[in-house]
Amino acid sequence: MADDKKLTTRAADFSAWYNEVVLRSELADYSPVRGCMVIRPNGYGIWERMQRRLDDMFKATGHQNAYFPLFIPESFLHKEAEHVEGFAPEAAVVTHGGGKLLEEPLVVRPTSETIIYSMFAKWVQSYRDLPLLINQWANVVRWEMRTRLFLRTTEFLWQEGHTAHTTHDEAEEEARRMLGVYRDFMEGHIAMPVITGQKTDAEKFAGALRTYSCEAMMQDNRALQAGTSHNLGQNFAKAFELSFQSESGSTEFAWNTSWGVSTRMVGGLVMTHGDDLGLRVPPLLAPIEVVIVPIYRSDEERSKVLEAANAIVGSLAEWAGRGTERIRVHVDAREGMKPGAKYYEWELRGIPLRLELGPRDLAANQGVLVRRDTREKRPVSLSTIGEDLAETLSTIQREMLAAALDRREAHSVRDHITYDRFRELMEGEGGFVYAGWCGAGACETEIKNDTKATIRCLPDEEFRSADAPTTCLKCGRPSTVEALWAKAY
Amino acid sequence: MADDKKLTTRAADFSAWYNEVVLRSELADYSPVRGCMVIRPNGYGIWERMQRRLDDMFKATGHQNAYFPLFIPESFLHKEAEHVEGFAPEAAVVTHGGGKLLEEPLVVRPTSETIIYSMFAKWVQSYRDLPLLINQWANVVRWEMRTRLFLRTTEFLWQEGHTAHTTHDEAEEEARRMLGVYRDFMEGHIAMPVITGQKTDAEKFAGALRTYSCEAMMQDNRALQAGTSHNLGQNFAKAFELSFQSESGSTEFAWNTSWGVSTRMVGGLVMTHGDDLGLRVPPLLAPIEVVIVPIYRSDEERSKVLEAANAIVGSLAEWAGRGTERIRVHVDAREGMKPGAKYYEWELRGIPLRLELGPRDLAANQGVLVRRDTREKRPVSLSTIGEDLAETLSTIQREMLAAALDRREAHSVRDHITYDRFRELMEGEGGFVYAGWCGAGACETEIKNDTKATIRCLPDEEFRSADAPTTCLKCGRPSTVEALWAKAY
Repeated sequence: MADDKKLTTRAADFSAWYNEVVLRSELADYSPVRGCMVIRPNGYGIWERMQRRLDDMFKATGHQNAYFPLFIPESFLHKEAEHVEGFAPEAAVVTHGGGKLLEEPLVVRPTSETIIYSMFAKWVQSYRDLPLLINQWANVVRWEMRTRLFLRTTEFLWQEGHTAHTTHDEAEEEARRMLGVYRDFMEGHIAMPVITGQKTDAEKFAGALRTYSCEAMMQDNRALQAGTSHNLGQNFAKAFELSFQSESGSTEFAWNTSWGVSTRMVGGLVMTHGDDLGLRVPPLLAPIEVVIVPIYRSDEERSKVLEAANAIVGSLAEWAGRGTERIRVHVDAREGMKPGAKYYEWELRGIPLRLELGPRDLAANQGVLVRRDTREKRPVSLSTIGEDLAETLSTIQREMLAAALDRREAHSVRDHITYDRFRELMEGEGGFVYAGWCGAGACETEIKNDTKATIRCLPDEEFRSADAPTTCLKCGRPSTVEALWAKAY
Repeated sequence: MADDKKLTTRAADFSAWYNEVVLRSELADYSPVRGCMVIRPNGYGIWERMQRRLDDMFKATGHQNAYFPLFIPESFLHKEAEHVEGFAPEAAVVTHGGGKLLEEPLVVRPTSETIIYSMFAKWVQSYRDLPLLINQWANVVRWEMRTRLFLRTTEFLWQEGHTAHTTHDEAEEEARRMLGVYRDFMEGHIAMPVITGQKTDAEKFAGALRTYSCEAMMQDNRALQAGTSHNLGQNFAKAFELSFQSESGSTEFAWNTSWGVSTRMVGGLVMTHGDDLGLRVPPLLAPIEVVIVPIYRSDEERSKVLEAANAIVGSLAEWAGRGTERIRVHVDAREGMKPGAKYYEWELRGIPLRLELGPRDLAANQGVLVRRDTREKRPVSLSTIGEDLAETLSTIQREMLAAALDRREAHSVRDHITYDRFRELMEGEGGFVYAGWCGAGACETEIKNDTKATIRCLPDEEFRSADAPTTCLKCGRPSTVEALWAKAY
């Protein structure tokens, strides 16, 4: 694994840095299939931890998992007018099966609204069958022209929640609730702060009434849309005849929501926390939280130090100070490799803590603990190692979020800048710009054409400026709403 | 959910019974896509528990999860001669992407040997990189002409393990180890006894050196191939140039194994344990182990009984007699539905235990516990409810396996029957027949053409008859090996 050539720095070329980190820390690799990547065990281990936690959160909010077909009859996509316009151009199409030309081509699902609501229509008769709260973990395919590892690939892994409700307000509440779940997860686990808000009509999901999103700032000051939640209104219910008998006996169309996050979040993690030495993984998502590197000069020292390392592993397996969640520790006992080379490799992979253990440390009943995030180094007593590791890991988790938040705020502009200054910013260092908007699609489009920046969202109240903007960034007319502008992935 | 019409009995029409159980217990449903099914929450909940346990077992044997592309360039399939012959006829082919005809068609993976070993070839340089032990949870597609819910569908969910080793013997050991893991899981969790053994050349995996399988007997006395493990030899390594530098410096091809189990196991569970009232789910795989049905005649009684039911749920959440694995309990508090209708529904769904709770029971500090498997009914004290439920669940798990084992042995024939008797059996009640085989493909083919029975496997030593057969079932020549014959799914 260890490729001793130094990483390109973030400052020199952020994009090259990102690819190098992903490849060299073995999160993922290019595949022989155009636009598709392979998620390697280091990357999949992070995704698995994301899945496990999100799945628990979905279940705690009343959702159940199910699985729907990979293939969607082409005619289904056409049943919702905006939906087909949005997704048909990106479709991968199966035309042959079992050696024969198919009567109707099948689209490999780009998202599953159509197939899922056609099934809901079969299952729902009465208001008693609602709400129906379903989630699916699946792969989806969108034929992308320009792909980036994790951020934009032809095939990706995600979850898609799909729900049906009796009223608009209940669907709205659900769409909002799941946006909140996403935010909690992204901040609490990825340590990646996000701005939540509503998408403009130009940016909303094809077929939705309203789309909400979580927008995070990467270290190149670009925005990453990290998750979306849609109030679909009755658009799909009407297209697929998803109706129910109401309590009063009338027949009504159901109200739907859908919401999804994907392996893109792994890319967000890298671009939020990585540094010029490689990855930094927040402890809650790290498959290994602590790596023990034994230091020795003789076989005798080696067996003594390894014995002590294994004793620590044993004591941590017993230690119940974190309840049923044991500290995930690994002893790097590889022979023929110097400690320095091991440090380098584990730093590249972003493991949160390294415990160096040598004969002199052992004599003092201690080890040397090194934090990956701050590189802070200090002796720790082996007598209280469980408590100390757990507390440090929890400190790291907290401080990684705080650092990311500080970074974001340092690159956020709320002081009513001119359009000239805005263009200058977008051509230069970038960042999040909060500005007034008149609500006209024309201004939105012109700004996008001028600067490549888009309205990431109309931020929720808690993110809006105390000193609200009064005029549109572009046309100078009165502002109807505050918008968050940024260049995005 | 409750469709009050009685199920078709197993005796009347096993196949109709199976479909009705799957549909009415809401394990799965037909989809609008030919040959593809929808796995509903009741079915997916069982699959999730299967996944979780198997995943733990794979990790405990040193494997890591990864994810490889859904699409395989058509030319890849052609690199291994037997493999393409086996899988090309069943291929679903993507010919168009992003609105354009693709230069090379992409096959939706029917299995991933080709794409995975092409990546292994990139990652493996030296013997130090081996063994490489990877597993993938994924969907796969095989264009089947005749489909059955869970048993044979165009798309299905599975895991596929793929490993690379330095020697034939190490690969053989791995293929055998994973067959053992499958057997442990099937017997220990699905409570479905299996015969393990080697497939004949006619029945082995396309491209394998040797295939091993787990064969279970369903209640119609047919065999279900529930899992396979392959020693692939160097076939794929040669096709994809997966070579490594050995310790002595020479360049050698790696030795591969692959192994998989799928959602088909859910079908096996149904056909092993279901009865004329519906499903019976082994406790270890049941998303709900105990359902509490409150019995009352007035609102006052209702609130009293529900309060007691919730108190039981609370006490079970606290009760740590099963370690971190809490008893999965659900209170069926639905209004406007009689207890009898609830019993019917939970029996149909196969929940292992029902606890009936009425005012008179409460006065005696007890409930009435009903086992789904035996329908045995007895009072239980609420003071020791945790211990009692846990012990009963563990008894049910054990007795379901024992009952399935007894059934299988009662329909297994080891007494050197004549070919005429064999034909009679296969035309009638079916069953597992242990018989001698001369090893000639001709005899195997003739028997298959005559009777539709196939050699399920050449059983491992522990399953072979004490009184070994000496002549071939078909031709009467000396037997070279004992074979297990049955009609199969």
